[in-house]
Amino acid sequence: MTLRGRLFGLGVGPGDPELLTLKALRLLREAPVVGYFVAKGKKGNAFGIIEQHLQPAQQLLPLVYPVTTEVLPPPLAYEQVISDFYDSAALEVATHLDAGRDVAVICEGDPFFYGSYMYLHDRLASRYGTEVVPGVCSMLGGASVLGAPLVYRNQSLAVLSGVLPHDELKRRLADADAAVVMKLGRNFPKVYAVLQQLGLDGRALYVERATMANQKVVPLAQVDPQSSPYFSLIVVPGQRWQG
Amino acid sequence: MTLRGRLFGLGVGPGDPELLTLKALRLLREAPVVGYFVAKGKKGNAFGIIEQHLQPAQQLLPLVYPVTTEVLPPPLAYEQVISDFYDSAALEVATHLDAGRDVAVICEGDPFFYGSYMYLHDRLASRYGTEVVPGVCSMLGGASVLGAPLVYRNQSLAVLSGVLPHDELKRRLADADAAVVMKLGRNFPKVYAVLQQLGLDGRALYVERATMANQKVVPLAQVDPQSSPYFSLIVVPGQRWQG
Repeated sequence: MTLRGRLFGLGVGPGDPELLTLKALRLLREAPVVGYFVAKGKKGNAFGIIEQHLQPAQQLLPLVYPVTTEVLPPPLAYEQVISDFYDSAALEVATHLDAGRDVAVICEGDPFFYGSYMYLHDRLASRYGTEVVPGVCSMLGGASVLGAPLVYRNQSLAVLSGVLPHDELKRRLADADAAVVMKLGRNFPKVYAVLQQLGLDGRALYVERATMANQKVVPLAQVDPQSSPYFSLIVVPGQRWQG
Repeated sequence: MTLRGRLFGLGVGPGDPELLTLKALRLLREAPVVGYFVAKGKKGNAFGIIEQHLQPAQQLLPLVYPVTTEVLPPPLAYEQVISDFYDSAALEVATHLDAGRDVAVICEGDPFFYGSYMYLHDRLASRYGTEVVPGVCSMLGGASVLGAPLVYRNQSLAVLSGVLPHDELKRRLADADAAVVMKLGRNFPKVYAVLQQLGLDGRALYVERATMANQKVVPLAQVDPQSSPYFSLIVVPGQRWQG
């Protein structure tokens, strides 16, 4: 009987290849199979981060998203399409694990912080040995390049998705000592309007693709709402504690 | 005229020395002076993480907290004592910077995520060149060792301090899709009671000193409330998305 392979979820950080951890690098190098989620026709951010460390003997396992938008023409439902995709991705990974090959799935940022790895983990962790290596998440990459201390002492932090409806976003932002709004993209105008309504637009900071080679810090009022990418985020730092 | 030194805030991760990033390691090795906050008579968690990488030529700059508790006998006020301490720590660091020596201040977890480095940054960033290297924060270290995906899709995450009053903690936990409660220690009984009142105690997970050598995962109901350390945290993972 073949000993089953193990599944690794490796956080590779927010974009700067140097923000990889020693542990993720070691496990990446040891993995016979390297899996990564990627959009059709793209190289993928996570892959770009670790590409330089790959050896010819390592087998690549791209897991290619079948869709690039959450809005699909009927009768297709995003939830069903993506759920089927994760099912088949898990099967592909399991084929390697069953053959005794470890699989390292690389994840931009952290695997358990909005990472697609989670959907493989949920499908496979009950049947295979797993290990998750945490990574530097994009929101902390963002705070660092903005030079913005995020939370002081006992302040509460709200991590919010720009996809949230206007009223919920407003309620949660109003209640937070500090906040990060992720997944901006075409949600930018809504998020900006909410920040203005709450008088937070003066405190909020904006960055695109933090720590990546094409990183861009733009004053919030000068962001082109048409071109804000998905990998942009807004940080509302906690009020400075004078201590 | 001497060229001024630069101030680096280096996140060194939650405890496992392998969770150091390549960038933090490089900048640590290049720094002539290595600063770190530490309690009197202790080595310090951050120092323990990076100790193995230090060279004899590097100068150590321990910044020793004058107090170990936030409750002081009158007429001492914690805020004043700690604020004075950060003032004098900033002066010590500035002495090196003025002499043209770079100073790398190491921080457990991430520098801008409840890190003491923030108080140096606030005092010095307007006068000296600074660079902050984000790190793997303790909450993601915790989620990884608990095997608990933290936030799915567009779920909101609340990061809360166990120090918060009962009612505020309850209100914020009730409103969150997913949550992490940090700084437990002697606040554990209060936090546990709130989780029970909200029916979240079945979903919540507990870990002490995640990713450190003496890490301990304990079922929530079996935690000894008298011995829960400051470096423990509770994760309430988001509801699994079936996608």
